Amino acid sequence: MTTHAPLSDTTSATTTPARPDTGRVTAGQGAGDVFGYTLMAEDGMARRGRIVTAHGAIDTPAFMPVGTAGTVKGLTPEQVAATGAQILLGNTYHLMLRPGAERVDRLGGLHRFMNWPAPILTDSGGFQVMSLAALRKLDDDGVTFRSHLDGSKIRLTPERSIEIQRLLDATITMCFDECTPFPATYDQAASSMRLSMRWAGRSRAAFVERPGYALFGIVQGGVHADLRAESVARLTEIGFEGYAVGGLAVGEGFDLMCQTLDVTTPLLPRNRPRYLMGVGRPQDLVAAVRRGIDMFDCVMPTRSGRTGQAFTRRGTVNIRNARHADDPRPLDEACGCPACTQYSRAYLHHLHKAGEILGAVLLTQHNLWYYQDLMRDMRDAISTSGMDAFTQDFDAGQAEGDLPPL
Amino acid sequence: MTTHAPLSDTTSATTTPARPDTGRVTAGQGAGDVFGYTLMAEDGMARRGRIVTAHGAIDTPAFMPVGTAGTVKGLTPEQVAATGAQILLGNTYHLMLRPGAERVDRLGGLHRFMNWPAPILTDSGGFQVMSLAALRKLDDDGVTFRSHLDGSKIRLTPERSIEIQRLLDATITMCFDECTPFPATYDQAASSMRLSMRWAGRSRAAFVERPGYALFGIVQGGVHADLRAESVARLTEIGFEGYAVGGLAVGEGFDLMCQTLDVTTPLLPRNRPRYLMGVGRPQDLVAAVRRGIDMFDCVMPTRSGRTGQAFTRRGTVNIRNARHADDPRPLDEACGCPACTQYSRAYLHHLHKAGEILGAVLLTQHNLWYYQDLMRDMRDAISTSGMDAFTQDFDAGQAEGDLPPL
Repeated sequence: MTTHAPLSDTTSATTTPARPDTGRVTAGQGAGDVFGYTLMAEDGMARRGRIVTAHGAIDTPAFMPVGTAGTVKGLTPEQVAATGAQILLGNTYHLMLRPGAERVDRLGGLHRFMNWPAPILTDSGGFQVMSLAALRKLDDDGVTFRSHLDGSKIRLTPERSIEIQRLLDATITMCFDECTPFPATYDQAASSMRLSMRWAGRSRAAFVERPGYALFGIVQGGVHADLRAESVARLTEIGFEGYAVGGLAVGEGFDLMCQTLDVTTPLLPRNRPRYLMGVGRPQDLVAAVRRGIDMFDCVMPTRSGRTGQAFTRRGTVNIRNARHADDPRPLDEACGCPACTQYSRAYLHHLHKAGEILGAVLLTQHNLWYYQDLMRDMRDAISTSGMDAFTQDFDAGQAEGDLPPL
Repeated sequence: MTTHAPLSDTTSATTTPARPDTGRVTAGQGAGDVFGYTLMAEDGMARRGRIVTAHGAIDTPAFMPVGTAGTVKGLTPEQVAATGAQILLGNTYHLMLRPGAERVDRLGGLHRFMNWPAPILTDSGGFQVMSLAALRKLDDDGVTFRSHLDGSKIRLTPERSIEIQRLLDATITMCFDECTPFPATYDQAASSMRLSMRWAGRSRAAFVERPGYALFGIVQGGVHADLRAESVARLTEIGFEGYAVGGLAVGEGFDLMCQTLDVTTPLLPRNRPRYLMGVGRPQDLVAAVRRGIDMFDCVMPTRSGRTGQAFTRRGTVNIRNARHADDPRPLDEACGCPACTQYSRAYLHHLHKAGEILGAVLLTQHNLWYYQDLMRDMRDAISTSGMDAFTQDFDAGQAEGDLPPL
């Protein structure tokens, strides 16, 4: 067990007494005044645990639906909570441009603004600046860019990113970093990682400590084991309440992602949550949980839901395919979500062909339900030392493919 | 009291014993094996009543949300039921083109297909053919047109319209008619009305009687009192379970609509529900209820909700207006809907500016909630002889205008 973290005020692995949730959303039970991670069970490298925050508890491994602009696209917070989600991700880049961080602050913070009293993690904005904004200019102090909405010139530094995340009232704040592109030369990956590590120190200094809130560091270093190790060493020297693995799921592919995790997660503190950013497909989640990851976020279940792609226990299903037009069967017979228990494939097909909003809503809800079921099943498997059996079953189901036509 | 209707099997004004609703949606309580209308109270011409159908009861005056293509755009059936709606309208034209009436029949009918076990009224398709389809050709037997979806050539006659509505399993079927355009000469209105009356006879003959199901006739005749009277006489001679007033809300304006109702509803059988098709704004509903109308449908609350227009007790509000960007107050402080109790104007404004699905969902839900509250308040007012006071309050609220800026 690594013990690099010099923090004293936030390292408690004990769970503080639950207090009643005062919000309308049923998620967010078990709020605590001290941010802490409890490791409850291990199965190989896989970990089952619980994170306590100011806004409620999170059972891990956990999947965080993406609520880019203050809403998980298409769903009410009640519908999101019904899937089993206990924490959402918000995008700093989008929210700073619209409606604006100061405005969200005046309106009581993001939890109140979007009616989600449970935990929220915000990214730092850095990744989206590089993927969405125009005329980006990176220097050692930060990045200047133009808004993709109105072209206005904006400056983002570690200090401003951390301030924005505080104004948003993020439960978990992420360090401002540069997501190293792939491919990159070794030297590019090294200098990019070292820039992110300097920014991690500035992020830590800028972060305002509040009970039950947390700042996570982000490990970079591309696909190079020594750079990843250097990054972990620098971050744990600074000390964070949790550690993310960044710079993956950027085109390196499944095998390189797994190899990079293999050389990174064993170095991370055992008593801190570990978050793999931007991942991924169901098979990626299983592989990463087996390599010791506790938290995930990805737009895949929500974005795919809007375009007609469903994730099921038998692989992906394109509901727009004509084969579903007369099919009275549910999308996934083992799923308990509204789309599967109340509607036929024929109806879901019809909604998507007709471009109806409800089609996006139901498939988004199903996909998030499926992702949350997957995480819950993995938590159960870890508790019973059943991850190997679970993984075999999972792989067999995915390989089996969709139901044959009637 | 008029007593034209020669029907014997469906004239019962008694309420059959309620049976449990077997569907998942909570609407649809009080289903009966005999279709019937009970007049419970009158206040001037305004009527409070109850319709019993095979799929549940409907308290009148009632507003029917429009579920064009097998979904009330943006909402789940649970969300629609939560607004207080007890009956939906489905569009025969849209459903016959996609997913197709025979397909809906194979899948168990529209109630099951869209998970709405409560009553459904379908229009005849005639109005949409004239407003949406290409290359329409009307003859005495029916209408030939090309689908606006794929250009295919389609024939619609009274017999086929009634068959389609049976395949959809409509609780209330509408006669196939021609909606007389406005303006029209007296001779055009007369010959159009007489064509519709011949089609009404054919619709009645084609309708397959089923316990708890109903066929409604449609009064035409433009804005001409004698033609409306002739139309009522012809329809009541045939005999229907309910009577609609068609050919209004087509550009004639509020005053001519009211004048036409004034000369039409007094002629209609007192023991049958009366339905004003395609109406309207909140003030139109109040005016028409005062003139003896029991049922309404209109796309206004749903369509407006998607584009950012809200109906409130203080008139309409355009939530996209910049004045709402920082406003923490609810849209309508007297409204109990989720949009008003859980979110600020600032959040709703943000969602609509950002083009988020949830913005359409919440405003649609609010508008339907407001419409259903309006109908409920009118039912209560009629029961207590309070329609005059209600109307004064309603007019005062609408005239007051939206909240002043903070």
